[in-house]
Amino acid sequence: MFKANELAGKTIIVTGGGTGLGRSMTTYFLTLGANVVICSRKDEVIQQTAKELKDETGGNILAVACDVRKPLEVDEVLKQAVAEFGSVDGLVNNAAGNFISPTERLSPKAFDVIVDIVLKGSYNFSLALGKYWIEKKIKGVMLNIVTTYAWTGSAYVVPSACAKAGVLALTRSLAAEWSKYGIRANAIAPGPFPTEGAFSRLFPESVLKDIDPLQRIPAKRFGEHQELANLAGYLMSEYSAYVNGEVMTIDAGEWLYNAGEFTLMDKVPAEAWDEVEKHVRGKK
Amino acid sequence: MFKANELAGKTIIVTGGGTGLGRSMTTYFLTLGANVVICSRKDEVIQQTAKELKDETGGNILAVACDVRKPLEVDEVLKQAVAEFGSVDGLVNNAAGNFISPTERLSPKAFDVIVDIVLKGSYNFSLALGKYWIEKKIKGVMLNIVTTYAWTGSAYVVPSACAKAGVLALTRSLAAEWSKYGIRANAIAPGPFPTEGAFSRLFPESVLKDIDPLQRIPAKRFGEHQELANLAGYLMSEYSAYVNGEVMTIDAGEWLYNAGEFTLMDKVPAEAWDEVEKHVRGKK
Amino acid sequence: MFKANELAGKTIIVTGGGTGLGRSMTTYFLTLGANVVICSRKDEVIQQTAKELKDETGGNILAVACDVRKPLEVDEVLKQAVAEFGSVDGLVNNAAGNFISPTERLSPKAFDVIVDIVLKGSYNFSLALGKYWIEKKIKGVMLNIVTTYAWTGSAYVVPSACAKAGVLALTRSLAAEWSKYGIRANAIAPGPFPTEGAFSRLFPESVLKDIDPLQRIPAKRFGEHQELANLAGYLMSEYSAYVNGEVMTIDAGEWLYNAGEFTLMDKVPAEAWDEVEKHVRGKK
Amino acid sequence: MFKANELAGKTIIVTGGGTGLGRSMTTYFLTLGANVVICSRKDEVIQQTAKELKDETGGNILAVACDVRKPLEVDEVLKQAVAEFGSVDGLVNNAAGNFISPTERLSPKAFDVIVDIVLKGSYNFSLALGKYWIEKKIKGVMLNIVTTYAWTGSAYVVPSACAKAGVLALTRSLAAEWSKYGIRANAIAPGPFPTEGAFSRLFPESVLKDIDPLQRIPAKRFGEHQELANLAGYLMSEYSAYVNGEVMTIDAGEWLYNAGEFTLMDKVPAEAWDEVEKHVRGKK
Repeated sequence: MFKANELAGKTIIVTGGGTGLGRSMTTYFLTLGANVVICSRKDEVIQQTAKELKDETGGNILAVACDVRKPLEVDEVLKQAVAEFGSVDGLVNNAAGNFISPTERLSPKAFDVIVDIVLKGSYNFSLALGKYWIEKKIKGVMLNIVTTYAWTGSAYVVPSACAKAGVLALTRSLAAEWSKYGIRANAIAPGPFPTEGAFSRLFPESVLKDIDPLQRIPAKRFGEHQELANLAGYLMSEYSAYVNGEVMTIDAGEWLYNAGEFTLMDKVPAEAWDEVEKHVRGKK
Repeated sequence: MFKANELAGKTIIVTGGGTGLGRSMTTYFLTLGANVVICSRKDEVIQQTAKELKDETGGNILAVACDVRKPLEVDEVLKQAVAEFGSVDGLVNNAAGNFISPTERLSPKAFDVIVDIVLKGSYNFSLALGKYWIEKKIKGVMLNIVTTYAWTGSAYVVPSACAKAGVLALTRSLAAEWSKYGIRANAIAPGPFPTEGAFSRLFPESVLKDIDPLQRIPAKRFGEHQELANLAGYLMSEYSAYVNGEVMTIDAGEWLYNAGEFTLMDKVPAEAWDEVEKHVRGKK
Repeated sequence: MFKANELAGKTIIVTGGGTGLGRSMTTYFLTLGANVVICSRKDEVIQQTAKELKDETGGNILAVACDVRKPLEVDEVLKQAVAEFGSVDGLVNNAAGNFISPTERLSPKAFDVIVDIVLKGSYNFSLALGKYWIEKKIKGVMLNIVTTYAWTGSAYVVPSACAKAGVLALTRSLAAEWSKYGIRANAIAPGPFPTEGAFSRLFPESVLKDIDPLQRIPAKRFGEHQELANLAGYLMSEYSAYVNGEVMTIDAGEWLYNAGEFTLMDKVPAEAWDEVEKHVRGKK
Repeated sequence: MFKANELAGKTIIVTGGGTGLGRSMTTYFLTLGANVVICSRKDEVIQQTAKELKDETGGNILAVACDVRKPLEVDEVLKQAVAEFGSVDGLVNNAAGNFISPTERLSPKAFDVIVDIVLKGSYNFSLALGKYWIEKKIKGVMLNIVTTYAWTGSAYVVPSACAKAGVLALTRSLAAEWSKYGIRANAIAPGPFPTEGAFSRLFPESVLKDIDPLQRIPAKRFGEHQELANLAGYLMSEYSAYVNGEVMTIDAGEWLYNAGEFTLMDKVPAEAWDEVEKHVRGKK
């Protein structure tokens, strides 16, 4: 989408950048000329990703193992990033976890795991980078990956909903507060962008036939990772300099489609509408 | 719900007060001691309603025929209300219309009909009452009946969605602007509160079996009119004096239930969760 | 507002019920006939409150010391409540903490303190009660106290914004998921309801003269505790049975007033509007 | 921002495309290779704009005079656009009007003028294009220009707030309903992007000194037209194919900054925070 070298000279940290959407964003940032630092608890995974993406894009990438829940490890990522690339200009809070489960089957501990990774991990990195940017007078850019259920809530993913809602409030709050330092903070709420086989790994065959995420999407297709990467590229670039505190949803209209009270009329066969029209016209 | 005489001495105009939810609110306001003025284009209907409700509640009720789209007729309602009851303290913008239809089957004229009744009707009455309250230094209360698709939008009821969204913005805007005059404005977004037979009148049998509004409601029941009337009573009373610019949703959680991305997991049979848990635990 | 004995026979747990708005809600619930269990880390404070409110209302009240962050202590509150009153029907997650501070002055640890009390405390209690209600087939009611910045975010209270946003998502998610068990969950977003002297204790005199929370409120008054207690009483009662997943804001329109782009025109003196009208009429 | 020829081969109608932000979007679309049809009631203005932009960009542009409130004139624009360019692929509903005024000074007629231009104009064009796209099986793209007060409402611009809220609901509703035809609909909510001299033309000098829109913007600058044009270019292109029903705000965080309850603490001088910290730490 962008002119090449769109992000040349920028250094961006992507948490959870070794896999899934994090990897896709990382790849695109590298293609656009940015230096990227990826981190994850799984050192082996991110080192392998770094090697592959270096070969694939020719870009500069550094992998640093890090548990986002631990402030000292977060500080270490920043330290190594600065040592390698001179400075850091961008942060993508992408690392996440989720338990899909009836809530009454979860323990407080299970909630803690998700909230600690998603929410605490995000504010740990945001605090570290924010303090660094303010001190160094760098006009940093923050991008937080949330979900549409950050504002609607959702059954069966309640710890994630709590945590992602917290990250959205973090985004908006820091956008308002740190604008005076030239720092921006935005969020993306992706709809269903499954990594290959994600759903079939999650659910046994017997369940898969009863639940089909595609039916919730009016366009009847999942998102492609590059589509999300395009939006992430926009929000990390100077071109979006006047966008701040915003959450941009990229879900093919999924949440609104289902929220709308009369969407169920999609099931009315075309031939029945003539009949229905006679019934409804002129009535309140 | 309330102590008796909760609204004693108050005079409230309810547009569309002759039928449906408007009639239910009118009945409750009368019970709580208010004088009520109902209006509708159908003079016969509202005169009949007025007679019935007077008998039923012993309250003071006046019916004035009025096309809410016509400012002069709106002024006339206010004039007659003041003549009858001395002053007017409250306004409920409840009159509405709707076409349930694929949008591409609608003409611009069909949109106009709904937008004119719902949005123009609401601002016509709000302007008339607002100017009167400001002039007379009356701390008036406005209550606008909207829908949950005022903010989510909805397929198949697009003219109504446009109009109700406008009414919600009207509510919030006037709440902000006229607070300095002691005027409040709030809204209620009812979910499915069908009047008897409404759905079966709307749809032929062949369609009814395919679309079931109840399936969208997690509580699997429609609202009872008195439940909405209770909330309306609260918002028209002094007890809600610190509530302003707010839209209160009373839909049993319907819109959020359907908006939530993972609600579809409701279809997972209980016995499958043990299996699913094994799949999802520990994965992102 | 309510008929007496509105909540007779119900038992409600109010976290942080010993002081401030928690105490005001507790008092009103007792007046309406409910048994109330209050908890707080400060045993002495809540025992004293319990004693005073028993004298004041003649109601049944139990105080149990509890750190809401500790699931075992939460379980103990439930256990003692059941032992004392036979069952528990309602939960108000009201316990909270807040640091008003530039975010860059906060440590990750400071964020943890607030998130742990507000968000973890709320899900600890919600999980304990939810599991109990599902097991005992009790149609429990949950009420969570949030803020308007749960959705807007806010500068200078970022840990609280993250946590309260999480609680709002918890509310909506559980409302959607547990409706099938007859459980409801709602929230109240209070605007400025200061306890006596709160603001003067927070800020030195030199700062107080520059910041005046009243200027943000179009009605130019703070809320009275009973106004919030009325709304809480409604949401805990059967009268609100069709309200679920909803957050009701009671802030006199404060957040909308300030969010609205043209509210600043309040500063245009009345006599200047004639002039302005000539300028704007007919232009885009 | 984009690679050249990003929109090559596309034909886009921009209502109100002769001036202001409409002209800026038109210019950028032409630069990206699109054919553009602009319309406005003022034939002379748009013919002049068309001439200038043709010279400036070398692109293909057609100007058709049209009152957006009149369905027959809207149909004529479409007809001429198809005659000139073969087909139409995109629609930008940008034409607008506004009265900045205390609402009690407005007549119902003044409301009608704004609602008719903004809301009726938008659905007139959306209906015409939608029916055409569905019939011709064209995967059209719609972009509606709204405001942040479409959802917050705003004092002093109430007719515009009502109308723009309606347009937002139109966007979301059509996005949900017409996705099955491959049609997308999105919106942009610009913050303050003044055209040169706009504010000084609106307000007399005496008022200007009391109201300063810049004070509401944490970045203390207005938006540049190209910044909005970039976002519009994204939303009209294939790159945003998975974005549907979304409203993207580009306001430098203006509305959230002001909505946030504690933003007023910006006025606390840096040196006072040490003192404040002592006051607030450890308190609820």
